[in-house]
Amino acid sequence: MPMVPQNTTPSTTGVTRTLARYVVSTKFADLPPAVCKEAARTLLNWVGCTVGGSHHETVDIAVSALAPFSGPAQAGILGRKERFDILHAALINGISSHVLDYDDTHARNIIHPAGPVISAILALSEHRPVAGSDFVNALVAGVDVECRIGNAVYPQHYDTGWHITGTAGVFGAAAAAGKLLGLSEQQMLWALGLASTQPVGLQEMFGTMTKSFHPGRAAQNGLTAALLASRNFTSSEQSLEAKYGWANVVSTAHDYSQITNTLGKTYEISVNTYKPFACGVVMHPTIDGCIQLRNEHKLTADKIDSVELKVHPLVIQLTSKKLPQTGLEGKFSIYHAASVALIEGGGGIDQFSDRAVHDRTVTSLRDRVEHAVGSVDHPMSDRDLETKFTGLTEGILSSDRRSRLMELCWNVQGLNEAAAIAQAATPA
Amino acid sequence: MPMVPQNTTPSTTGVTRTLARYVVSTKFADLPPAVCKEAARTLLNWVGCTVGGSHHETVDIAVSALAPFSGPAQAGILGRKERFDILHAALINGISSHVLDYDDTHARNIIHPAGPVISAILALSEHRPVAGSDFVNALVAGVDVECRIGNAVYPQHYDTGWHITGTAGVFGAAAAAGKLLGLSEQQMLWALGLASTQPVGLQEMFGTMTKSFHPGRAAQNGLTAALLASRNFTSSEQSLEAKYGWANVVSTAHDYSQITNTLGKTYEISVNTYKPFACGVVMHPTIDGCIQLRNEHKLTADKIDSVELKVHPLVIQLTSKKLPQTGLEGKFSIYHAASVALIEGGGGIDQFSDRAVHDRTVTSLRDRVEHAVGSVDHPMSDRDLETKFTGLTEGILSSDRRSRLMELCWNVQGLNEAAAIAQAATPA
Repeated sequence: MPMVPQNTTPSTTGVTRTLARYVVSTKFADLPPAVCKEAARTLLNWVGCTVGGSHHETVDIAVSALAPFSGPAQAGILGRKERFDILHAALINGISSHVLDYDDTHARNIIHPAGPVISAILALSEHRPVAGSDFVNALVAGVDVECRIGNAVYPQHYDTGWHITGTAGVFGAAAAAGKLLGLSEQQMLWALGLASTQPVGLQEMFGTMTKSFHPGRAAQNGLTAALLASRNFTSSEQSLEAKYGWANVVSTAHDYSQITNTLGKTYEISVNTYKPFACGVVMHPTIDGCIQLRNEHKLTADKIDSVELKVHPLVIQLTSKKLPQTGLEGKFSIYHAASVALIEGGGGIDQFSDRAVHDRTVTSLRDRVEHAVGSVDHPMSDRDLETKFTGLTEGILSSDRRSRLMELCWNVQGLNEAAAIAQAATPA
Repeated sequence: MPMVPQNTTPSTTGVTRTLARYVVSTKFADLPPAVCKEAARTLLNWVGCTVGGSHHETVDIAVSALAPFSGPAQAGILGRKERFDILHAALINGISSHVLDYDDTHARNIIHPAGPVISAILALSEHRPVAGSDFVNALVAGVDVECRIGNAVYPQHYDTGWHITGTAGVFGAAAAAGKLLGLSEQQMLWALGLASTQPVGLQEMFGTMTKSFHPGRAAQNGLTAALLASRNFTSSEQSLEAKYGWANVVSTAHDYSQITNTLGKTYEISVNTYKPFACGVVMHPTIDGCIQLRNEHKLTADKIDSVELKVHPLVIQLTSKKLPQTGLEGKFSIYHAASVALIEGGGGIDQFSDRAVHDRTVTSLRDRVEHAVGSVDHPMSDRDLETKFTGLTEGILSSDRRSRLMELCWNVQGLNEAAAIAQAATPA
C-alpha cells in the first residue's frame, strides 16, 4: 500500500478546521436560553427512550455478548444494573436509545441527534467530573457538528444507502467528547479525522437489530476518536473536504456552506423534534390507528368533525400531499391515508386507487385532517415530553427515581456533575 | 427513521448466503498442502511485522489511550508485556501489523489480508482453545472472504477513496472469527451483515497514524460482529448484494462472480505476497537506494552489469513501463527510475524529462534492471521470510523466543493450541 498523503502542507483554513476551531472555542455562556432549553428537552427525551428501550431483546443480547470483554465498571447502562467501561456503555446506551424507534429526529436531515452524542458524553461524564453547563455546551456543539455535516450531504448521502445517524453521528460524538476532554484545535481536527474514517450504517440493516447498533457504535467510535486524539494520535486535518475525504467518498453531492455558515449564530438543536409515538413504515401507524378507531367506535364520516394526527416529521416530508390526484399520489398523502382508512377501514390497493382519491366522502374528511403534531411548527410541549418520559420509564424505575431523573434533566445546566443523570437512571 | 426492510422474505440463495454457507462448511482436511503452507508463510510474516511494529509511537499512543478501558487481560499485545481484552488486543495487534507498511499484500486487490484476520483470530484463540488446524482453516477462509469481496469491487471501490484493507478486511475478520466460534449458516449471515455495516478507512488518512488504525479496527469490528452474531443479534441476510447493501453503497461497480465462483477450488491466500522491505510512495525507496549506492561506491554505468530490484507488487502494477517514451511515462517506469538515479544521482524534474528517458546511458542501464522480486511470479523464499522475521523481531524478543516463535508459525497446523503463538510473541 503506497503512502500517498493527499495534503503535503498543514491546512490553515478549510471546512474541517473551521468546524474544529468553532467547537474548541464555543462557550456555555454564549448559548441563548432557548438553545439550553432545547438541550434539556433533547436530554429528557433521550433518557426516557434509553431507559424505555433498555430491556429490549436487542439490548439483552448486546449486554450478554459483550460483558465478558468489558473493562472496569465505569459507567451505567441506563435502566439496568450492569456497569461497563465507558466505551461499551456508550455503545449499549446508544442501542437502547434507538431500539424503540422513538427517539428524536432532526427536522431537516432525519438524523437522530441525541443517540450518538449523549451516549458518548454521559458515559464520559461518569469517568471524569463534568459540570452540567459544560455538558449542555458539549451536547449543543455535538448536535451542531453532526447535523451541519448531515445538512451538507443530505439527501444525496442518504439516498446512496447510508444510515445518516451512524455516519454523521460519529462526528457529533467525537466533537462533543473532544470538547469535554479539552482538546486543542489540532487534536479536535484529528478527532474529526478519526471519526470520519469510521462511518457506521447501511440502510439495508433496517428491520434488524443492527439498525439500533448504528447510533450506539457511532457513539463508541466518536468517543474512541476523541480519546485517541487527546493523546496525539494523528489523523487527517481535512477529513471532510479532502479529495478522498468523507464527503467525497460517501456522498454524490455536498454543500460545505451548510457546515461553516452561521456557526455560533444558529443552532441545529433548535430544529430537533421528538416523536409522539414510535413510528415504523411512515404511514402504517396512522392507517392502523384509524382502522382501529373506526372499528371500535363504529365511526362513519358524518360522525367525525376533524382528525388530528401526531406524526414523525418524515411523514410530513415524504407524505404531505394535501390534494392527491391519482392513486399513486394518494400513497404520498397522509391526509388521504387517514381519511380513507377511517371511511373504508383498509389501506390496500383499492384505498390507494384513482377512484379512492376522488371519492367525495374521502376528500371531504381529508380536508378535516389537521396539520400534524410533532413537527417543528407544532412541537411536543414540555408536558407531552414528560408524559412520554413517564410512559417509557415506569415499570423500570421507581416513582421517586423517575421524578428525580426528570428534575435532573430539566435542570441539567445547573448540575455540579452531569454524571448524576446516569446514576439516577439506573435501578436502585 | 422509517423501518424499510429491503427484503421481505428470507433469502435461500444469493451472494452473501453462498459465501456464508461455504465458510460454515469448509474443513481443514480439504485444504491442499500448498494452501496450508502459504497460510504458515502468511502467519510468519504477520507475526514478524506485528512484533516489529509493536513499539512504534502509533502503538504506544493507542495502548496508553485505551488501557484504562480495557477488559480482563485475555490476550497478549505481541512484542509487548500488556495484556488486553480480546477486542482491544485485536485492534492493537492490527495496528502494529501495519504500522511499518511492511505487511503482506494480495497481488490482485492490494488488500493486506493478514492484518484484519489474524489479529482477530489469534486474540480469540487466547480466550477459547483453538487447535492449530482449525486456526489455519479459519485463516484461509477469512482471507478468502475478504479477498473475494475485494476482487468483486476492485478497482472501483478503491478508486472511490476507500482503504480496501479496512473495508473488505472486516468481512474476513468476521468470517474467520465466526468460523472459530462455530456459527451456524444463519449466524454467519448475520456476522457478515454486522461486518458490512462497519467499513473502516478513507484513503485521506494515508500518511497519518490513522492509516494503521484501519486494519486494527477492521479486526476488532469483525470480531465484535462474530461475537454478537453468536448470540443471535440479527442483521441483514443479503448484506453484500442488497440494493442498499455493501457493494452498491461503497462501490460504483461490482462482479459478484468473483465472490461465488470456484469456492473451495481456488484459494485467495495462494496469491498473497510479502514485502521484501517497507515501502512508502511507490518509487521512492528504489530511487533513494540507488542514489545511496551510487554515492557510496562511486558507481558509474560501465561498472554495473545488472540491477536487481526487490519491490512491492504495486510498484509493478503502477510503474512497470519498460520502454518509456516521454518524461511523464518515465514517472511510471521503475526501470527508468532506478537507472537514472544510479547514473545521475537524482530523482528530480530533470530525471523525469523527455531528455532523460532517451539518454543513451540511462536506457542502456535500464535494460539491465531485472524483473522485480517480491511478486507472485518471483516470491519471497521461506529463507527470505525468515531473514525478514529475524530482522523485525530481534531487539524485542530473545533469540530463544524468536526461534521458538518461528517454529510455531511454520508448524501452526499441528499445534494443540494456536494461542501458543501469541504467548511466544510476547517478551518474557
